[in-house]
Amino acid sequence: MQNVAEEFDIIGKRVPRIESVPKVTGAIRYIADMVLPGMLHGKFLRSPCAHARVVSIDTSKAEKLPGVKLILTPDDIIGKTRPVGIFPPQNLYALHQEVRYVGDEVAAVAAVDEETAEEALALLKVEYEELPAVFDPEEAMRPGAPQLHEEAKNIRDIKRVRVGNIEEGFRQANHIFKARFQTSKQAHVCLETHGCLSSYEPTTGKLTHWVPSQMIFFNRLDLARALNMPLNKVRVIAPDGIGGAFGSKCTTASHDICAALMSRRLGRPVKFILSREEEFLATISRHPFIRDAEIGLTKDGTIVAWRERTIQDIGAYADIGQWTGVVTLASTPGTYKIPNVWADNYLVYTDKSNSGAYRGFGNPQATFARESLLDIAAGQMGMDPLELRLKNIIKPADLPYTTSNGLIVRSCGMEECLKKAAEAIGWGSKRKANTGVGLSCTINWGGDKGGDKNLFDACFGSALVEIAVDGSVTVRTGNSDIGQGLYTTLAQIAAEELGIPLDRVTVVGADSDTTPPDMGCYASRSALVTGSAMKRAASEAKETLLKVASKMLEVDPEDLMAKRGKIQVKDLSKSLPIEEVARAAYFTNMGGDAGPIIGRGVWTSQTVPQNADGYGNFVPAYAFAAHAAEVEVDPATGTVRITRYVTAHDTGRVINVHAVEGQIHGATGQGIGYGMLEEGLTYDSQDGHLRTPSIMEYKLPTAADLPDMQTFIVEAIDPDIPLGNKGVGEPGIICPAAAIANAIYDAVGVRIKDLPITPVKIMRALQEKHDAVKAK
Amino acid sequence: MQNVAEEFDIIGKRVPRIESVPKVTGAIRYIADMVLPGMLHGKFLRSPCAHARVVSIDTSKAEKLPGVKLILTPDDIIGKTRPVGIFPPQNLYALHQEVRYVGDEVAAVAAVDEETAEEALALLKVEYEELPAVFDPEEAMRPGAPQLHEEAKNIRDIKRVRVGNIEEGFRQANHIFKARFQTSKQAHVCLETHGCLSSYEPTTGKLTHWVPSQMIFFNRLDLARALNMPLNKVRVIAPDGIGGAFGSKCTTASHDICAALMSRRLGRPVKFILSREEEFLATISRHPFIRDAEIGLTKDGTIVAWRERTIQDIGAYADIGQWTGVVTLASTPGTYKIPNVWADNYLVYTDKSNSGAYRGFGNPQATFARESLLDIAAGQMGMDPLELRLKNIIKPADLPYTTSNGLIVRSCGMEECLKKAAEAIGWGSKRKANTGVGLSCTINWGGDKGGDKNLFDACFGSALVEIAVDGSVTVRTGNSDIGQGLYTTLAQIAAEELGIPLDRVTVVGADSDTTPPDMGCYASRSALVTGSAMKRAASEAKETLLKVASKMLEVDPEDLMAKRGKIQVKDLSKSLPIEEVARAAYFTNMGGDAGPIIGRGVWTSQTVPQNADGYGNFVPAYAFAAHAAEVEVDPATGTVRITRYVTAHDTGRVINVHAVEGQIHGATGQGIGYGMLEEGLTYDSQDGHLRTPSIMEYKLPTAADLPDMQTFIVEAIDPDIPLGNKGVGEPGIICPAAAIANAIYDAVGVRIKDLPITPVKIMRALQEKHDAVKAK
Repeated sequence: MQNVAEEFDIIGKRVPRIESVPKVTGAIRYIADMVLPGMLHGKFLRSPCAHARVVSIDTSKAEKLPGVKLILTPDDIIGKTRPVGIFPPQNLYALHQEVRYVGDEVAAVAAVDEETAEEALALLKVEYEELPAVFDPEEAMRPGAPQLHEEAKNIRDIKRVRVGNIEEGFRQANHIFKARFQTSKQAHVCLETHGCLSSYEPTTGKLTHWVPSQMIFFNRLDLARALNMPLNKVRVIAPDGIGGAFGSKCTTASHDICAALMSRRLGRPVKFILSREEEFLATISRHPFIRDAEIGLTKDGTIVAWRERTIQDIGAYADIGQWTGVVTLASTPGTYKIPNVWADNYLVYTDKSNSGAYRGFGNPQATFARESLLDIAAGQMGMDPLELRLKNIIKPADLPYTTSNGLIVRSCGMEECLKKAAEAIGWGSKRKANTGVGLSCTINWGGDKGGDKNLFDACFGSALVEIAVDGSVTVRTGNSDIGQGLYTTLAQIAAEELGIPLDRVTVVGADSDTTPPDMGCYASRSALVTGSAMKRAASEAKETLLKVASKMLEVDPEDLMAKRGKIQVKDLSKSLPIEEVARAAYFTNMGGDAGPIIGRGVWTSQTVPQNADGYGNFVPAYAFAAHAAEVEVDPATGTVRITRYVTAHDTGRVINVHAVEGQIHGATGQGIGYGMLEEGLTYDSQDGHLRTPSIMEYKLPTAADLPDMQTFIVEAIDPDIPLGNKGVGEPGIICPAAAIANAIYDAVGVRIKDLPITPVKIMRALQEKHDAVKAK
Repeated sequence: MQNVAEEFDIIGKRVPRIESVPKVTGAIRYIADMVLPGMLHGKFLRSPCAHARVVSIDTSKAEKLPGVKLILTPDDIIGKTRPVGIFPPQNLYALHQEVRYVGDEVAAVAAVDEETAEEALALLKVEYEELPAVFDPEEAMRPGAPQLHEEAKNIRDIKRVRVGNIEEGFRQANHIFKARFQTSKQAHVCLETHGCLSSYEPTTGKLTHWVPSQMIFFNRLDLARALNMPLNKVRVIAPDGIGGAFGSKCTTASHDICAALMSRRLGRPVKFILSREEEFLATISRHPFIRDAEIGLTKDGTIVAWRERTIQDIGAYADIGQWTGVVTLASTPGTYKIPNVWADNYLVYTDKSNSGAYRGFGNPQATFARESLLDIAAGQMGMDPLELRLKNIIKPADLPYTTSNGLIVRSCGMEECLKKAAEAIGWGSKRKANTGVGLSCTINWGGDKGGDKNLFDACFGSALVEIAVDGSVTVRTGNSDIGQGLYTTLAQIAAEELGIPLDRVTVVGADSDTTPPDMGCYASRSALVTGSAMKRAASEAKETLLKVASKMLEVDPEDLMAKRGKIQVKDLSKSLPIEEVARAAYFTNMGGDAGPIIGRGVWTSQTVPQNADGYGNFVPAYAFAAHAAEVEVDPATGTVRITRYVTAHDTGRVINVHAVEGQIHGATGQGIGYGMLEEGLTYDSQDGHLRTPSIMEYKLPTAADLPDMQTFIVEAIDPDIPLGNKGVGEPGIICPAAAIANAIYDAVGVRIKDLPITPVKIMRALQEKHDAVKAK
């Protein structure tokens, strides 16, 4: 790992997370730990049918059960709350008159304890009128297929890219390769399942809603809209403890709406905690892709055309599926310089649970296809896959570079990443039989995805920095620490700017009443966007210190700096401890300059949403990564062992080495699971029942399944970002599947094009290859 | 009541308090309502001796009592915590090795419930070595008197005024009058007794301390100092429910320190709630004064000299007694233009509970003496008391006027107040026998008392105003609403500035982690100082709206205004609803202007602390008031009935008419209790035991004891304050005693010079007068 710039005292160091001890000792409280006086417990009745109309719900027996306080049916919701969400028709209402997947919410019960609520569910009598269902997206697209929604066709939308001239591109090509790639419906499987606690106070008309959320200000918007309340009457708080999110805790869910509504009706707090089975059954997962990709190259390996047609299974409702549709198209002409690109991305409804945001947000699917096809091309053309990549990526000399689809790349460490990964894996060296190496690389969008004109033209973070009389500092952020160590990173940024030790900073976060609005934690944006806002806030607070110190030291503020706990003259001739300056600022009458030291920072991504042709610059900065895997395949069993694994990431400026490595390692592990183990959520093709309702069936990687990783960090500082950092939450999960697929091909000469790459698929492919050789 | 200026939509109206319904319905939570998991209950062992050394404490039996978790003795405190407070030696430590009044804290017990804690107290064996005690301040001043402190004499301090030339002043005087006045040790008797709940989290090292406080940021300072913690590791929160304060909930008390310390030692929350008896025994009360006052006047009634010598009984420790010593001296040359003033104010320790801050802060005592002596002078000189006052007050033509002791008066409605009060009471009209009228008037300091150079040169408020996407507004203040309706006033100020209806504003308050630093609620300062900061914060938020709207409407920001829910061109040609502008600010990429709308306001009083001669301008603005009482005295019983009562207050700009009237009525009622009913805390002169340990003995006025009041508000707008308001929390309590004393004299010709004016004192005086007449 290269050293960070010398000018920083705290940024770029290895800093233990500030919440480590409270987390490890169990002191941090999660939603499940919270108890309020008079609290009730909510449970959902879920549909046993994949598609049906709810004809009637008989609540009479359940209502009579002692301890049952309220039963909500669709009649309480539809027309009585306002639909939420950005992309109608979608999961508009918390309960459904027409259910569209097995597990869809039909009714909700609030009772004095969970057992009573469960008992009440069993007493609810629902009459369903079954309707034809469809589970396969290709089937759903066919004429005459059962339709999920009245308001929209099964083909919810087609997102397009039309840049350059695709026909001309393929005409120029000397080589054209084409393949179909398929990916799974990967579940997030956070340690903490979904839940919330909602408490409405009738006398003030104020709703307080605790939810382990990535985006409290978005949940506030949704709750306010659903319940027809002003935003300042809805307080959303993310507890200190959030047990993982990975995109699954962005959108406002049925339990949020029902808990809030029940609390408002009853004047008592209501809590929902989903079971692990409900989590698999009825929360979001990664969009499965079927992607037909076609690449055109000239003789020397220059990519001149890229065409793809993708079917993206969005499940029963759109959730934020539309977005993945938009941004995933940008991945290929972002990773490589390709002048002519054509893409059609079909967003298709099926009678399954919703697909939604998941770390990588379409890019793992896109990258698996692209990087596999690239190796297919290299193999067929007799080119070295590394050479082919290096030929087509953006190089430092190209910067600033605008890709054919409009991404403006101002920093790019891809070349160094590829070379470092290849070198470390021993690219080109001889290996023993059944052992191979594979590469993959990607661009990643760090910051906001300005995909929707109504809501997301501008994506902001904000922060407040307050310096107390003793020079200790409290920083406030509306963003959530979902386990990635964001609050440590934000504390470092403030400490660095103020020139104080890290332990003098505390972070207060994620309460919509008391912390400043922030779009939240998604899209690898937090350290970048909220971090930039934090730097600005700290800088504004510092200005006050410098102004006060300039009077005390009789020096121009411009000649002062904050460094190592002091306000110092830049020539080091004089200095004052920060606490002395802070005290003076608060308590000395300095002609109006005195008073509390509060710095305020707002940072807004200056982005351009994609147009109908997929052209736009939708995030403020782009990160890059290359992974290299060495695998050993047992041809007798199809078992793959990753013998070595190298990651090289251009993250821009590193704030906390620990956090960045943690993100890379964690995401890479998840990417290896995605590539090799996780079949994802699978369903009975006849009745749509989930076949993987628990961790027994859903095969997650454990530590034993993961290789040691060698990690390189390349700091290609982005000139447009205050600290030059570019976001690191997602790239790690994007590369592994293709790197492993390419390594397996290198090892045993079979190409697996659908995820996960299991021993069964390898054995089948080896058999086919064997049969084909024999047939010749 | 005169109408407020027409330019305001919300300011100056009668606005019901935003917390009325939650308070009246019991929804608001007080400290007593709060329960945390694992919470323990704390109790004090209090000294039965007025002055003693604690020789030993045997805790062995108490420790063995099941449910007892911790016993603190002075050994745990002294040398192991840091002393708190501004004026040493004072209530430095939470427990005492040398006790100095009956009720002083000796030990503290934390147990699983209050009963167990009480039981444990009974098992503590303390050996005391009794020391001589002194209860009378004049006795305490004598040579050879028992001394309370090693570090300081009983005469803790002498505060002086030396302005003009007092000898020359008295030489010029044609008439000189002199009298001694005495006042009582009035208790605050808040509905809610003192208490706190402290919770220390060992893994984060963070202390959270809930306390019904007027000054959370000061409590934070004290707790951090006592426990040797950085300020950002101490979170002090005032609950929404505070059951009255009147100055009694400013300073950090023994229970605060002990609760915090116990929680840190045990890792469990600890709660203290004082009983009503403890409240009378061991919390602060008003300083009793013995004031010898002397006035010199020329023939025409011009006051040319004022001399006073005051003994101020500060109790066992100084608390903020030093401050009352400083500010009370400013009262007389502030109310009247007096060129030559001499004062000596002795702050004297006695073996009684501490005197401290109480609404009026020395001014009720000072004003009783001054206004009584003025009527004595008028009577002796054959002048009309109203004329005498009018002759000597500051008049509009004098403005700006600097008093002889340095107060800079920029607005003064005293003349109008006096005339309105006199006219309404029917001054000069004939009355039936035993009926009389009396007047009194005063200056009041609104804002901060810049009395201490180390801490209080500058006194600040701050505020944050956040506008949400839907145009609803959340304002944050570190100040407390102690029952006076401050939060409604602050919401009005923000709503007015932003041009939106009041119900679109919510107030979040008094949490040192999440609300901006504010010196808190004392000295009639909140609407003035915090209100000014709030106006600035709202104005800054408005600037963002105007900037964004100027782009939307293509109009200069200077041509726009926020009014009636809209951003309007000033010529009313175009407008946009505020919610549309807010949405655009958040969600439209406007070249860097977009993002959260957060306005930040700081307001610092530009004051000059008094120097050693008592010269200085220690608050930003001065309010004025005149009261007139009509009384009927029954000469057979001495019973006084107030038949009419008129208050006229120059408050500067009125924000909420309801709140201002509420302050005036409430304070006047308290002032009438002070004048006529409350003997205050009284003690056995032998052993120092409290004779008034409950409301049975302590005689509070009830609604039946109070007259209807006629209230005039004079809005002499202060040019130096953003809204021109001057503070109204205190003046009401200052005037009643003298107005009533003067009315009684007018009715039956007897002058009572010590408070309260009881039937017994009147009967005795009538008897003396009768005897004197008979003797002639």
